[in-house]
Amino acid sequence: MTPIKTIAREDMENIALGGAFLGTGGGGDPYIGKLIAEQAIDANGPVAVIDVEDLADDALVVPVAMMGAPTVMLEKLPRGDEAYSALRALEAVMGRKADAIFCIEAGGLNSTIPIAVAATAGLPIVDGDGMGRAFPELQMVSMTMAGVSACPMTMADEKGNAVTMNTVDNLSTEKFARSITVEMGGAGLIALYPMTGAQAKEAVLRGSMSLIHSIGRIIHEEQAANRNCSDRLAADLNGMRLFEGRVMDVDRKTTGGFARGKAVIEGLEGYAGQTMHLHFQNEFLVAETDDGTLLASTPDLICLLDLETGLPITTETMGYGFRVIVFGMPCDPAWRSEHGLQLVGPRYFGYEHDYVPIEDL
Amino acid sequence: MTPIKTIAREDMENIALGGAFLGTGGGGDPYIGKLIAEQAIDANGPVAVIDVEDLADDALVVPVAMMGAPTVMLEKLPRGDEAYSALRALEAVMGRKADAIFCIEAGGLNSTIPIAVAATAGLPIVDGDGMGRAFPELQMVSMTMAGVSACPMTMADEKGNAVTMNTVDNLSTEKFARSITVEMGGAGLIALYPMTGAQAKEAVLRGSMSLIHSIGRIIHEEQAANRNCSDRLAADLNGMRLFEGRVMDVDRKTTGGFARGKAVIEGLEGYAGQTMHLHFQNEFLVAETDDGTLLASTPDLICLLDLETGLPITTETMGYGFRVIVFGMPCDPAWRSEHGLQLVGPRYFGYEHDYVPIEDL
Repeated sequence: MTPIKTIAREDMENIALGGAFLGTGGGGDPYIGKLIAEQAIDANGPVAVIDVEDLADDALVVPVAMMGAPTVMLEKLPRGDEAYSALRALEAVMGRKADAIFCIEAGGLNSTIPIAVAATAGLPIVDGDGMGRAFPELQMVSMTMAGVSACPMTMADEKGNAVTMNTVDNLSTEKFARSITVEMGGAGLIALYPMTGAQAKEAVLRGSMSLIHSIGRIIHEEQAANRNCSDRLAADLNGMRLFEGRVMDVDRKTTGGFARGKAVIEGLEGYAGQTMHLHFQNEFLVAETDDGTLLASTPDLICLLDLETGLPITTETMGYGFRVIVFGMPCDPAWRSEHGLQLVGPRYFGYEHDYVPIEDL
Repeated sequence: MTPIKTIAREDMENIALGGAFLGTGGGGDPYIGKLIAEQAIDANGPVAVIDVEDLADDALVVPVAMMGAPTVMLEKLPRGDEAYSALRALEAVMGRKADAIFCIEAGGLNSTIPIAVAATAGLPIVDGDGMGRAFPELQMVSMTMAGVSACPMTMADEKGNAVTMNTVDNLSTEKFARSITVEMGGAGLIALYPMTGAQAKEAVLRGSMSLIHSIGRIIHEEQAANRNCSDRLAADLNGMRLFEGRVMDVDRKTTGGFARGKAVIEGLEGYAGQTMHLHFQNEFLVAETDDGTLLASTPDLICLLDLETGLPITTETMGYGFRVIVFGMPCDPAWRSEHGLQLVGPRYFGYEHDYVPIEDL
């Protein structure tokens, strides 16, 4: 993994690809965020990427993101400056300007939106994130494990509505904000988890922007060479091919502000005769065979790649007949702690199995 | 109607009675608010009542209220100081202290909560309100007709959660705030419609605290003299007995944060053989005979009184077998304007009739 020091227009292609991969099926379409980031970079110049250790201890670091149903996000980004409005609103609440932007989740739309905001605000972006992937709820971040409050949090929409909240804990923040996204028409732009540089050094996962960029470069290079990227990704990321097959059925419901469901995949090639079930809540959370043998489970990453091109596939676009590779990869070790598993382990999502690391399955 | 200049502990009994009457069946139980106000007056002394004309043009006037399902409110008032928290939060947003408290609706719990806040904050309360009665939604106030924004608005709950919002219009404020009350467990305390004294002089309905107190006094005096108050209220308030009967059926659902439903009342005495239907959404909104003849309609007031004692009955307590007087009374003339009827006329609530003033029915 090569550290990335600046994000220029030409880096956005790889970042969007890497963001789609780490989105683990969710987090929204990073290519929309790519367009917005490209526009912002064209207008304001490239974005500096800084190591979290380079922050002054009293610096103000602000994560920005989009929250809500990914499908709605695509329709609701006519201007792309609502996230900047959320940042400005949070700065007003804090009584000071931000010194750096931060990416709450290194997957999907939210891997690219913060770059657009950083360009527009003329601020650097920290080489890190709060998840090392995408997760569906906003309390599911390393900052929660480090005791950092999500509040004050600000939300803005494209109509001009703005909400600020201070809640008693980060799970309450998620619940309040989720219900507000519904009133905002399904999605809103948010700024939250304001941190000092000192807090950020304790709380954030390192190197995420570099990781996204490297993954995107691998996918890109392998695609250009007409090779499927999964072998090289497996070698570089300590990941593995879990399954290959054809999507036979997708059962998808939008409930409680989430896209929840299950895909059934029938094996091809070496997996012929086997069937896999892939469960998701925005993100892919559990992969198991049809007799219930666990292959991978949240918080480890489960990504879906096109069998031919290697391009990542999201839960929204996945459909009948897709020929896919199910790819697994260990999560950041922080998620394997007791606190981490309380936040994002299988039982939090209502599954009845305990977490087993992917490399032990 | 005698103007009230000070609210002391001994005035709270009549204010709660008058608030129950002007609550038109909704607005929550004013007797709970009475206990909270009595405690606040005991601790801090009586509350001065001021005429809106006595406010300096640059004074800051802040209405405070409880928002949500009345049934939940009763369970959620262990401390009674959340409304004060909402006021303090709004003062922080405004960057200045309030000079006077205001009562958004002269009915139910919200006719007494502002008195408790005024006592605690050591501030006077304006002799006025925004409805001249109770209505179920927060944009249904004279301030909306005068172009005053409900925002910035603050909300607080007993757990310590706090939300501030700035929305594009007052109907959006209602929708955002309603969904937040659900996350707050069904009800929250709010401070909103911050106004200058100059704005208040344009925007508020006059004399409401005096009116509440006078109505309560009449109910009290007539009850003490073993007379039903409805004759004297009819004479003093230009109101009328619409019906007398026995509640035979109550169909009540809690949907979208409101108690909606219909009561069927069979006539007694001079009304024997007739049946009346009483429709409500928190408040009583439409009274009609079973053949669809309109007797009274929002925004005019429809109050339910006990046939024996004359005490006001709320939509929550009303039940099978209650012997009642249905009492009607003209609303504040402001509601009969085109803008007023857009906000609170029968069609806003989904009824298919046009408004006809009660005195013409």
